[in-house]
Amino acid sequence: MSEAIELRTIGYVRGGRAESIDDGWDAVTAEIALTPDFGAEALAGLDGFSHVEVVFLFNRVAESAVVAGARHPRGRTDWPKVGIFAQRGKDRPNRLGVTICRLLAVEGTTFRVAGLDAIDGTPVLDVKPCMRGFLPRGEVREPDWARELMTGYWA
Amino acid sequence: MSEAIELRTIGYVRGGRAESIDDGWDAVTAEIALTPDFGAEALAGLDGFSHVEVVFLFNRVAESAVVAGARHPRGRTDWPKVGIFAQRGKDRPNRLGVTICRLLAVEGTTFRVAGLDAIDGTPVLDVKPCMRGFLPRGEVREPDWARELMTGYWA
Repeated sequence: MSEAIELRTIGYVRGGRAESIDDGWDAVTAEIALTPDFGAEALAGLDGFSHVEVVFLFNRVAESAVVAGARHPRGRTDWPKVGIFAQRGKDRPNRLGVTICRLLAVEGTTFRVAGLDAIDGTPVLDVKPCMRGFLPRGEVREPDWARELMTGYWA
Repeated sequence: MSEAIELRTIGYVRGGRAESIDDGWDAVTAEIALTPDFGAEALAGLDGFSHVEVVFLFNRVAESAVVAGARHPRGRTDWPKVGIFAQRGKDRPNRLGVTICRLLAVEGTTFRVAGLDAIDGTPVLDVKPCMRGFLPRGEVREPDWARELMTGYWA
């Protein structure tokens, strides 16, 4: 059975886009500011990594908009109807986003990133360094629609 | 300020290791079974991907064991003391794990994976397909300790 899990925000996205737009995210820079629960030591050594992985909450998605079954990604009926766990759209159970972005600078309890697809004010639940060892082992295969969807996503 | 966020488990890890061990995870296979809140359509099309990204809770970590500042990864004093957000250890705020593993098979509301570093019974909070477009853009740099730590992690 399903169980409730209580988490706490560890920081917030500051700056970047004010509204969600589908494409062009790599040109967007934003800051992540940790909450006052943390000191600068929580980010010590992060600047040794070129990329960070950010776990965040799509908090602007209404609970009523969450899809638990299948849908066409971006409503594109020319792409197959696939399960919510076979796509990365934001209208998903628990509304979690996970994105690897470039780390630009760390200063105190704040750090600056480029290419984070989360808007100003987004609650952040975790930050992890991107380690090569955690990238996929073996060739990554994906369906055509996934490649097409990502064509303009970053650039 | 920090805010509470309530999530619900969407599934559980079944099988694999019964206890957490540091290394050799790629040889481990396990199933993820969705909770009864979901039907098979939630996984429709997932088998078009070679890899999946699993967001899970390190629920065996006691809240009192969580580190909010800095520590030596794995207690190795020959490695630098770095912030909890500059390492991927499990004793972290919100105790979230994020791992990309190989997808072996999907059947109904269950799927089988290899190389998931989560033990039997682990609560799962999200599953996303691994899309090439969500892998890091640009060269990934990391400190020497991160490379050393991962040497035997999968193999």
